[in-house]
Amino acid sequence: MINKKKFIAVIGGSQCSKEETKLAEEVGREIARRGATLVCGGLGGVMEAACRGASSEGGVTIGILPGEGRQAANPYVQIPIVTGMGYARNITVVKSAQAVIAISGSYGTLSEISHALQGGIPVIGLNTWALSKNDQQDDSIIPAQNATEAVTKALNLAIN
Amino acid sequence: MINKKKFIAVIGGSQCSKEETKLAEEVGREIARRGATLVCGGLGGVMEAACRGASSEGGVTIGILPGEGRQAANPYVQIPIVTGMGYARNITVVKSAQAVIAISGSYGTLSEISHALQGGIPVIGLNTWALSKNDQQDDSIIPAQNATEAVTKALNLAIN
Amino acid sequence: MINKKKFIAVIGGSQCSKEETKLAEEVGREIARRGATLVCGGLGGVMEAACRGASSEGGVTIGILPGEGRQAANPYVQIPIVTGMGYARNITVVKSAQAVIAISGSYGTLSEISHALQGGIPVIGLNTWALSKNDQQDDSIIPAQNATEAVTKALNLAIN
Amino acid sequence: MINKKKFIAVIGGSQCSKEETKLAEEVGREIARRGATLVCGGLGGVMEAACRGASSEGGVTIGILPGEGRQAANPYVQIPIVTGMGYARNITVVKSAQAVIAISGSYGTLSEISHALQGGIPVIGLNTWALSKNDQQDDSIIPAQNATEAVTKALNLAIN
Repeated sequence: MINKKKFIAVIGGSQCSKEETKLAEEVGREIARRGATLVCGGLGGVMEAACRGASSEGGVTIGILPGEGRQAANPYVQIPIVTGMGYARNITVVKSAQAVIAISGSYGTLSEISHALQGGIPVIGLNTWALSKNDQQDDSIIPAQNATEAVTKALNLAIN
Repeated sequence: MINKKKFIAVIGGSQCSKEETKLAEEVGREIARRGATLVCGGLGGVMEAACRGASSEGGVTIGILPGEGRQAANPYVQIPIVTGMGYARNITVVKSAQAVIAISGSYGTLSEISHALQGGIPVIGLNTWALSKNDQQDDSIIPAQNATEAVTKALNLAIN
Repeated sequence: MINKKKFIAVIGGSQCSKEETKLAEEVGREIARRGATLVCGGLGGVMEAACRGASSEGGVTIGILPGEGRQAANPYVQIPIVTGMGYARNITVVKSAQAVIAISGSYGTLSEISHALQGGIPVIGLNTWALSKNDQQDDSIIPAQNATEAVTKALNLAIN
Repeated sequence: MINKKKFIAVIGGSQCSKEETKLAEEVGREIARRGATLVCGGLGGVMEAACRGASSEGGVTIGILPGEGRQAANPYVQIPIVTGMGYARNITVVKSAQAVIAISGSYGTLSEISHALQGGIPVIGLNTWALSKNDQQDDSIIPAQNATEAVTKALNLAIN
């Protein structure tokens, strides 16, 4: 049964640098190698690279799409979910995961980090946002140095 | 690749009669036998029966849940999607499918039928709602007499 | 305080006939004359006509918009609410109201009727959908013959 | 017409300190004095204090609620909008505003800040989150020292 597997979300920009692409692909590969299921927003950039990596290792990839049709999914999404709800789909991406790995990203990614932390879902960060409030650092985003460390931490911290 | 398979939604009440349970289970079985993927709202009643049927034939089952946690999914959901959006998840259920099979159901089911028809997604009906407007019958819900006929029609009419 | 006033939703097509326009405008006018607040989907057709009618009598008009910007609101919307959630805003339209008046309309309107009935919000119908299930008529949509009767019934049946 | 007025969102925790309460109330008062309309999430804490302040100066207050009923609105909300969509309503709160004032707050507030910045809606901060990415400070949240400065900046920067 697939639902015994952990669901790990990978979040990040729909456009990204070569380094970020490489990192996302390696994260996707590692998620699949460890037997987990990849959840993402289903579009390009970090999402596509992670799906490509997971697919190359035989993993399952879920893409939760913002628009009205499945055609917008990147070619490595196996399970396209069509929300029709725009950025509100960001909430569904993180709530469907048991841990989240954030790779760089912009304000959309930050919204996903926020919704995950609000819901008690662990967030592992790779070159992504850092938070502070009233000059106090907030350490809720758990840093990782590379793809393997990120996936290991995500699986160790994954909630039920 | 799973995404070459057709995605068929089964919608209906979270509580249902014995006959409806049997019918939903047979629909789920037939969807799996025909190599399609089952999408539903992930809860009990018709949704659970359809997932049980599909699982018994080795099919893939997706449950798009209204609440904040995956624990609400019925035990036959393999891919739980956690929307956190209440009844707005009804829209995601039908938009994620390429055809919809409605089994009996109440007003929540009717909202799913409406959202599907609004989006041009074919709806096959088994003992479900009938519509008319200004004394003119609306024939958009395509009737079926049994599970096999419903699944055959759904697969024949499925959009891309 | 505005919130002592009843909130009445007017739902219907974003395109409509001359008769429907006239009817919607009269419904809007009557809602305002009776001191209630008009809620609608904020776009054209029945929504615009109802807002124009309510505005002409000094009423308050709320438009709950599907897209990403307030510019899509018709010119008679005083309170534009920008959901960014596409058709999921249909749910917010009806849940924000204490009774709903449906004027003709297509499947989007039917989805609003369904969500209202599912949530126990009374629906008054003017030349709109009729429902049946398994050859049994469903009388949940309360018919009205004209604008005054529709608004009177909506205010009498409005929930808290 | 109310829609000539600027819509300013006030966001922050549903529980807050005495200082935050005082600050939010003063922000609400100043929004009303300047003829703007207050948008918020409709619940307690910062939201209630801002609504109380705006109401005391005769301003209009809109509360965009997460749940299924209007009863959850704080007593100073004049226009309750019932979304039924949980935290997805955070997106509607900020997209309905032309500028956002963030007062302290936790991860829910951070999600609202993120969605606003993603959508190009100016965010003014009072003792709230600070952002950085890859050791580079992100200055998108515009700081203010007090309620008057925050409202002045919000009105000056408000988009159309």
